[in-house]
Amino acid sequence: MTTFQSGGERGKKMASTCLGILDRLDSGEVVVGDGGFLFSLEKRGFVKAGLWTPEAVVEHPSAVHQLHTEFLRAGADVLQTFTFSATEDNMETKWEDVNAAACDLAREVADGGDALVAGGLCQTSLYKYHKDETRIKNLFRRQLGVFVRKNVDFLIAEYFEHLEEAVWAVEVLREVGKPVAVTMCIGPEGDMHDVAPGQCAVKLAQAGANIIGVNCRFGPQTSLQTMKLMKEGLRDSGLQAHLMVQSLGFHTPDCGKGGFVDLPEYPFGLEPRVATRWDIQKYAREAYNLGVRYIGGCCGFEPYHIRAIAEELAPERGFLPPASEKHGSWGSGLDMHTKPWIRARARREYWENLLPASGRPFCPSLSKPDA
Amino acid sequence: MTTFQSGGERGKKMASTCLGILDRLDSGEVVVGDGGFLFSLEKRGFVKAGLWTPEAVVEHPSAVHQLHTEFLRAGADVLQTFTFSATEDNMETKWEDVNAAACDLAREVADGGDALVAGGLCQTSLYKYHKDETRIKNLFRRQLGVFVRKNVDFLIAEYFEHLEEAVWAVEVLREVGKPVAVTMCIGPEGDMHDVAPGQCAVKLAQAGANIIGVNCRFGPQTSLQTMKLMKEGLRDSGLQAHLMVQSLGFHTPDCGKGGFVDLPEYPFGLEPRVATRWDIQKYAREAYNLGVRYIGGCCGFEPYHIRAIAEELAPERGFLPPASEKHGSWGSGLDMHTKPWIRARARREYWENLLPASGRPFCPSLSKPDA
Amino acid sequence: MTTFQSGGERGKKMASTCLGILDRLDSGEVVVGDGGFLFSLEKRGFVKAGLWTPEAVVEHPSAVHQLHTEFLRAGADVLQTFTFSATEDNMETKWEDVNAAACDLAREVADGGDALVAGGLCQTSLYKYHKDETRIKNLFRRQLGVFVRKNVDFLIAEYFEHLEEAVWAVEVLREVGKPVAVTMCIGPEGDMHDVAPGQCAVKLAQAGANIIGVNCRFGPQTSLQTMKLMKEGLRDSGLQAHLMVQSLGFHTPDCGKGGFVDLPEYPFGLEPRVATRWDIQKYAREAYNLGVRYIGGCCGFEPYHIRAIAEELAPERGFLPPASEKHGSWGSGLDMHTKPWIRARARREYWENLLPASGRPFCPSLSKPDA
Amino acid sequence: MTTFQSGGERGKKMASTCLGILDRLDSGEVVVGDGGFLFSLEKRGFVKAGLWTPEAVVEHPSAVHQLHTEFLRAGADVLQTFTFSATEDNMETKWEDVNAAACDLAREVADGGDALVAGGLCQTSLYKYHKDETRIKNLFRRQLGVFVRKNVDFLIAEYFEHLEEAVWAVEVLREVGKPVAVTMCIGPEGDMHDVAPGQCAVKLAQAGANIIGVNCRFGPQTSLQTMKLMKEGLRDSGLQAHLMVQSLGFHTPDCGKGGFVDLPEYPFGLEPRVATRWDIQKYAREAYNLGVRYIGGCCGFEPYHIRAIAEELAPERGFLPPASEKHGSWGSGLDMHTKPWIRARARREYWENLLPASGRPFCPSLSKPDA
Repeated sequence: MTTFQSGGERGKKMASTCLGILDRLDSGEVVVGDGGFLFSLEKRGFVKAGLWTPEAVVEHPSAVHQLHTEFLRAGADVLQTFTFSATEDNMETKWEDVNAAACDLAREVADGGDALVAGGLCQTSLYKYHKDETRIKNLFRRQLGVFVRKNVDFLIAEYFEHLEEAVWAVEVLREVGKPVAVTMCIGPEGDMHDVAPGQCAVKLAQAGANIIGVNCRFGPQTSLQTMKLMKEGLRDSGLQAHLMVQSLGFHTPDCGKGGFVDLPEYPFGLEPRVATRWDIQKYAREAYNLGVRYIGGCCGFEPYHIRAIAEELAPERGFLPPASEKHGSWGSGLDMHTKPWIRARARREYWENLLPASGRPFCPSLSKPDA
Repeated sequence: MTTFQSGGERGKKMASTCLGILDRLDSGEVVVGDGGFLFSLEKRGFVKAGLWTPEAVVEHPSAVHQLHTEFLRAGADVLQTFTFSATEDNMETKWEDVNAAACDLAREVADGGDALVAGGLCQTSLYKYHKDETRIKNLFRRQLGVFVRKNVDFLIAEYFEHLEEAVWAVEVLREVGKPVAVTMCIGPEGDMHDVAPGQCAVKLAQAGANIIGVNCRFGPQTSLQTMKLMKEGLRDSGLQAHLMVQSLGFHTPDCGKGGFVDLPEYPFGLEPRVATRWDIQKYAREAYNLGVRYIGGCCGFEPYHIRAIAEELAPERGFLPPASEKHGSWGSGLDMHTKPWIRARARREYWENLLPASGRPFCPSLSKPDA
Repeated sequence: MTTFQSGGERGKKMASTCLGILDRLDSGEVVVGDGGFLFSLEKRGFVKAGLWTPEAVVEHPSAVHQLHTEFLRAGADVLQTFTFSATEDNMETKWEDVNAAACDLAREVADGGDALVAGGLCQTSLYKYHKDETRIKNLFRRQLGVFVRKNVDFLIAEYFEHLEEAVWAVEVLREVGKPVAVTMCIGPEGDMHDVAPGQCAVKLAQAGANIIGVNCRFGPQTSLQTMKLMKEGLRDSGLQAHLMVQSLGFHTPDCGKGGFVDLPEYPFGLEPRVATRWDIQKYAREAYNLGVRYIGGCCGFEPYHIRAIAEELAPERGFLPPASEKHGSWGSGLDMHTKPWIRARARREYWENLLPASGRPFCPSLSKPDA
Repeated sequence: MTTFQSGGERGKKMASTCLGILDRLDSGEVVVGDGGFLFSLEKRGFVKAGLWTPEAVVEHPSAVHQLHTEFLRAGADVLQTFTFSATEDNMETKWEDVNAAACDLAREVADGGDALVAGGLCQTSLYKYHKDETRIKNLFRRQLGVFVRKNVDFLIAEYFEHLEEAVWAVEVLREVGKPVAVTMCIGPEGDMHDVAPGQCAVKLAQAGANIIGVNCRFGPQTSLQTMKLMKEGLRDSGLQAHLMVQSLGFHTPDCGKGGFVDLPEYPFGLEPRVATRWDIQKYAREAYNLGVRYIGGCCGFEPYHIRAIAEELAPERGFLPPASEKHGSWGSGLDMHTKPWIRARARREYWENLLPASGRPFCPSLSKPDA
């Protein structure tokens, strides 16, 4: 049983607040990312699937504040502004207010703990139709302007399915002197133009990204396969970059190059694919063993999944997150149950080896992706 | 496509605020219950599994407030105080503060909408060891004292696995003149002493319960089977009572008499069993067709599941819930997607017939319950 | 490891050749039945699905002879004439030749071992339309005439879905003084007129049947449930009869009252449901423990399934069947394999606990029966 | 519905009896192979799993004769001698008698139809330990001596997991002037020394093999993937050879490089993986479309699977096999069934789209291979 304390130990760590993301990673620290806002808030009633835009930051700020708080409590070292797709092309006039409010919300919560604020932007809806570098870079630049004004700690360019657009994003973000992380939403087969993960990583490093990896579209195990290829690509080219993974909270062994959006269950029937906390502990450990030091989640990652990362890597980090006060590691909270067969579940071997049933005898195990 | 408005129509309904639970049910109205607090807040980091006690109402009131708000937005007509197991035997000295704070939180949120507040109590941890009627009734009475002082709108005795203790609870709750609902956590096989559901319903009606049904421990379809037996029991005995169902949000076709706690996945590996919103629309429709008019959820029911009930029964109720502004019925929000095969999912037939895969090819469909 | 010898010990048993079926059962001996002819010979190319008539006995006698030989080698104590549906109503003029040839084939093979020949008849295609007792009994009588002329050792009336017609069959078969076994193709829910299994058994015993049970339409586990009900029915009524079970070789936990014919996989997609030899050893043991002493199979039962019965009950019977010379018990034949992980499968625990995968990730576990 | 006749049309084909295997393939004819002897005869009680040697040809010749007959009836154009592993290293003194008797049995049955006899040999048990070319080639040469003496029509070297040994076999078989087919038991990942399928095909063609492909160890779909790679390898090198596929009758999407022997179900729990006749029709069509013209099966292929190949390719071949007189194409034999929902299954769409359930709710879909 772990002997970490989620209260006292936490105090000591507060001292590192002033360290930036690169200081932390350079010193070998594990950085825990946060989870997914779009899917969590859709289930809570504040985001509309299909559009997937973050107007909740102005319409329902307390709901966004609450989710940030939960991720912080779960152990996140980074709170990402809820600004996904919050650009002119998707949100018209209110895009600027949304970005500003999102920065304020993230900062307010982050200040209550030891967390950094990362300004996040993603691929544009234009690129697919018009590969107009100037226009797209200007979109990024305008969103970046808000992040600079609000003084976020660093920047994340995420959810890019085309390497070229990701490189443009990195080039823009590099302009303001803050650390830049970039994650593509690609699987082991590479980007939409068949650029392999290793090659993507190399090009992104050459463009100046400090932290490189993947987020979204693929499940934990598949994302780690992609990370392995990225790592090998960087190694073979002799380039250096920190590695970062923020996978889906859904298992997707059956998805093709397009990722989970092509699975027939997307987005309203993914429930049976949701990872357990034990799946995520395994993911965290394997990511760590692979050399990834920035480990978080994307769509489908709830606060308890982030806590699972923080708990799995507590030996390396030296402390448990606040939310572990409400969680016995490996099910130990069950050891007082009145039924002996439930008490018998209060141990690591039980949960590590459990193959959970779906309770859906008429459903298959895997799906054939559309398209 | 539905033509209900979630904004304007909602206004009209506000007028019924002053109606009590029995007025509503007597007039044939559908009452939407709320969902589960313990499992939702465990995943958010505020409740500890195993203990399952609601100290979050005093420790993290904003988290509880937020969840109430989400259920209200999703269409709940009743906000239940988060007072599960909040009795002296489980919580020692702070039980009274927890009950009082829970009533205040529920009332504060309910006042922002058209919702009633129900004071909720459940079976004691004593009954299994000491069937001491006086002592147990006094436990109920003390919790009831807070509910009376805080002037809840009606009372719910829930999660009883033994008929006898449920009858005692009804007898106590009847003492203060407020409407009384009672739900047992039993399946079609009956209570722990093998009293059949029909007989349970009859005894509870004879004890004076106004609303009778089941909550928790069994999934949507299994709970409806039990409700059918309860309905037949009441009919055969010539007794009258309103029917109420608040099932798990997990599919449990494979659980035995003890319900989901005996499944090997309980409580940390239940993810693959989580119901989709479409499963819950089916549940709501079938409950309605069976004559049940108080329809809600228990553990595993998230806000979007409650919204699914409210959306399925919107034709009968005449309005959509506020949270439907962030939801296209039957996936219609996907109709603008850039990928044509995802646009093709924006229709009822697609989601109604989907058999969602688990993405877990090494896992079985059903489990053998322990014990 | 068993120490039975399939050669030497077999010699001793030859002495019991002259014992009839009732002598054997009365003395407590286990009688191993044979397996299914229709499905086996359909897969071998000699029977047409849909018609399911046994003209192969005259068209391809060597194929039928071969299958009898295989069942005998596998340990069958009874060879049943391949005369299913071989009545005037199904086969026109050639019915009599088919019955006679079938008796000769069974006898020829039986004489090479220690087996009895049972003349088998089944329900008519008339009963469903015309419940004409005289006409139906005359159909049975004509088929019986051949069995008497060919001097079969005893008679089996099998595959009856209506109790009334089964009683008629027993009444006819009783007329000639040979022992009579009768098996219905019903499940735990009873016959097509909702007569419960216990009641069926009682009526069949009262009609004079010596051996009573079920065959076909339901899988091993389901058939044993029905046998339990039959046994209880006989016990409660104070009647005596030997018990007999000849289940499908397919798993059918999901079929309704109509049995496997209503499953969507019937008859050309049942492969994933085929029982392993280990499933059948379990079935044999459980049948034995239930008091059933005549244990065989029906559709889907191949020779190796019959061998599994004979091997499981070898301790009780005192010898192994001839075909065990080509089978190591519990996989022991693998102990010389060059791959160590395959050698590791040469043990009982391995096969007893194996949960075999289907290799069909897009297929469900259970089906919804048609009708 | 097909209008081919299995009787009359067959007559016309008799004329081609005198054509050799290469004449047939050179003229573009489809050649249907036969199925698996080891697994079929193991289930019938004549072969012992683990050893997998063919002493049944002398011990139980009528059982072997019967299986040859069934494959011939099912449409096989080639009867392969049952001489798998029948070399000195596996069978000691009786190896020569077994080879001779196997040739006689195959010839006797083949003479009753329009079939060729192929002498079959496979990899030695020596190669893994001693890569002694001379000794191994001499083993092949001795077995070949019997085939020459018995005047088989052509030769098949099959079940080679190492390219080098397969090349040696081809070199030996080429010495006697008969056509030579060679099939490796490899999957898309290549042979045990990681030689890719395309490279294997090239080397085998260069060694002088006339017909090249795969048999055994992998299921229908996996084997076709390997064939595609072999075809591409030959094309890229500008070499010519006929293509041949004889896959398992089991689905093995989950097996690794070692094939089905490494699956935990091998060899006694493979039942849920058995292909349906419709799976095999799909396999036959896809093999044909890929340009493969010699299409048969290996372990797990029963006579009805071979019939499925012959029926699927009847339009191309111009006739149905004899056993089709006992088979309505695409389930048409069900069209007279008394239950309307079973009559409704008498059509191609039904069986083509059926996703058959396993009836095993506690079993997974896929397995993790051992080793």
